[in-house]
Amino acid sequence: MIGRGMDHSAENLARQGEDRERGRELAAGVLAGERRSLARAITLVESARAEDRVAASALLDAVAGVGDSLRIGLTGPPGVGKSTFVEAFGRHIVGQGKRLAVLAVDPSSARTGGSILGDKTRMELLVREPNAFIRPSPSGAALGGVARRTAESLRLCEAAGFDVVIVETVGVGQSETMVADLTDIFTLLIPPAGGDELQGVKRGVMEMADILLINKADGALADTARATAADYAGALHLLRRRPGDPDGAPSAAAVSAATGAGVAEAWERIVAIDAWRRAEGWRDRRRADQAARRLRIEIEARLWERFASDPAAQAQLAALDGEVRRGALEPAAAAELIVRGGGD
Amino acid sequence: MIGRGMDHSAENLARQGEDRERGRELAAGVLAGERRSLARAITLVESARAEDRVAASALLDAVAGVGDSLRIGLTGPPGVGKSTFVEAFGRHIVGQGKRLAVLAVDPSSARTGGSILGDKTRMELLVREPNAFIRPSPSGAALGGVARRTAESLRLCEAAGFDVVIVETVGVGQSETMVADLTDIFTLLIPPAGGDELQGVKRGVMEMADILLINKADGALADTARATAADYAGALHLLRRRPGDPDGAPSAAAVSAATGAGVAEAWERIVAIDAWRRAEGWRDRRRADQAARRLRIEIEARLWERFASDPAAQAQLAALDGEVRRGALEPAAAAELIVRGGGD
Repeated sequence: MIGRGMDHSAENLARQGEDRERGRELAAGVLAGERRSLARAITLVESARAEDRVAASALLDAVAGVGDSLRIGLTGPPGVGKSTFVEAFGRHIVGQGKRLAVLAVDPSSARTGGSILGDKTRMELLVREPNAFIRPSPSGAALGGVARRTAESLRLCEAAGFDVVIVETVGVGQSETMVADLTDIFTLLIPPAGGDELQGVKRGVMEMADILLINKADGALADTARATAADYAGALHLLRRRPGDPDGAPSAAAVSAATGAGVAEAWERIVAIDAWRRAEGWRDRRRADQAARRLRIEIEARLWERFASDPAAQAQLAALDGEVRRGALEPAAAAELIVRGGGD
Repeated sequence: MIGRGMDHSAENLARQGEDRERGRELAAGVLAGERRSLARAITLVESARAEDRVAASALLDAVAGVGDSLRIGLTGPPGVGKSTFVEAFGRHIVGQGKRLAVLAVDPSSARTGGSILGDKTRMELLVREPNAFIRPSPSGAALGGVARRTAESLRLCEAAGFDVVIVETVGVGQSETMVADLTDIFTLLIPPAGGDELQGVKRGVMEMADILLINKADGALADTARATAADYAGALHLLRRRPGDPDGAPSAAAVSAATGAGVAEAWERIVAIDAWRRAEGWRDRRRADQAARRLRIEIEARLWERFASDPAAQAQLAALDGEVRRGALEPAAAAELIVRGGGD
């Protein structure tokens, strides 16, 4: 079989040993809570270089099972004021004596190649807090890759002793699903709007939310935001009755990143849900399901890598690709020929 | 290697020959434009039974490259009036002397297991048209599976001589991406709303749309719908400048499924875009890219099937699954052990 045992030379084995040692050393720094080690460790797991993969694997093995953070997912549509909210929310959390890490995920679309999130230094005040660690994710990778790397970065923050990790992203494409699948509590930030626009919110995203926060509850929009929160709260109770919620439905509340109104209450609500879920076993069940799904994704990725490094399969693929593109051969039929024909 | 050459008995080979013959016979009926054959052929490609896969494969091979339909994708949020619009739009197309197939895709979420689209018999008038063929997709499958089967059903409609195939689905989760990736022209149906709610539309979906239609341009909402169309038209021209559009940006127009206002114009616009894209080579390029992506998906599916039918790998998976769920072993590390350890 291809892609394995390809280079068992003494030189290569020695190099792999050094890479593993590099990973373990970094793990020691992470476990000691050193910020520089954590930053370097995240850079390592984000790296696509083969030798870094060996080191990253040793690093992650060395921190397996260590740490116990509350993992909060936060998304919202562009323009809802997410960065400002994370700044206010994060400062409140740090003010409670908690150590906070923020992973800002940028689901740069493969289509545009561009960055959606823009400049992360907008969190000017939070950045200066000694107990806060803010990390933007690398752009350019496909969403699947971002999800895998973010899961590992989250594990590293946890191992470094952070009490709370916020995974934050703009709500586009599948990014909400990704964030919900990485975290314990999924928070959806939405703008104030009349109740009759409820339909416009993607139902799939509503289904995932544990908490809805209606931002911009200040100035001229304060009343609208409160009315929107009331509308959503009512709708959520009507729409859903699900296990895993202390009240049988997610909550909705108005907040203002600008004035800080509702921020403390949002945090208290999250803490209360988490405490209840831990006690009832829901948190562990959710994490177990997430881990099982990630295992499948990791296996699929490795099966593809093995396929991609198989010269016979690649030759078959190259031979049939043109016919498939022209429409002369169905993709399924070509795949059948390629997978049956190559690989060993 | 596992999963192949497992049963080369004479009996099994004879059975496979019969299955292939069954597929080829059905193909003859499809190519003759027989509706019953088409319906049975779609049922065959939707089947998950192993013997049906052999027959389906022969069927698809036999119709490869036949047909030349205009493939239109149509999605919109729940409640926008999609079925009513497809009925009005479809009757207009049939009225132009075209043969029309409608594939109504139901992206039943793995989460809820339920059907979102509901009763397809709502298209009461279109259903009675002799030149229209309406087919709801099976519910219950995962989105990836629905996409694969819908692509094949679409090919069958095309081979049966339909001039136009509409792939219609409610806009939830990733279903829009799926529909856009199956069709030549992606149409997004949205409700009337003030221009300042533009932000609420998922940017990723806007990026995909070739045409935006603002529905319900009748009665009390007529003016709002027209204003919304004007807002979007302006925004789209500001936001985008892309190749593959005759005017460098998608268009936006108000329509009414109830009165039929704007329906003829929407059809003319689609025909004009398609004619321009064919002439400029954009249609073939888009289809080639779609086929290449589908090839990758089909290969990935077969790699997974091969893995899932490998007893050694499955034993490894079973042994490590519990550790992964408990958080004692990282999914990536477990995947490494499983893929390196099993498979041959």
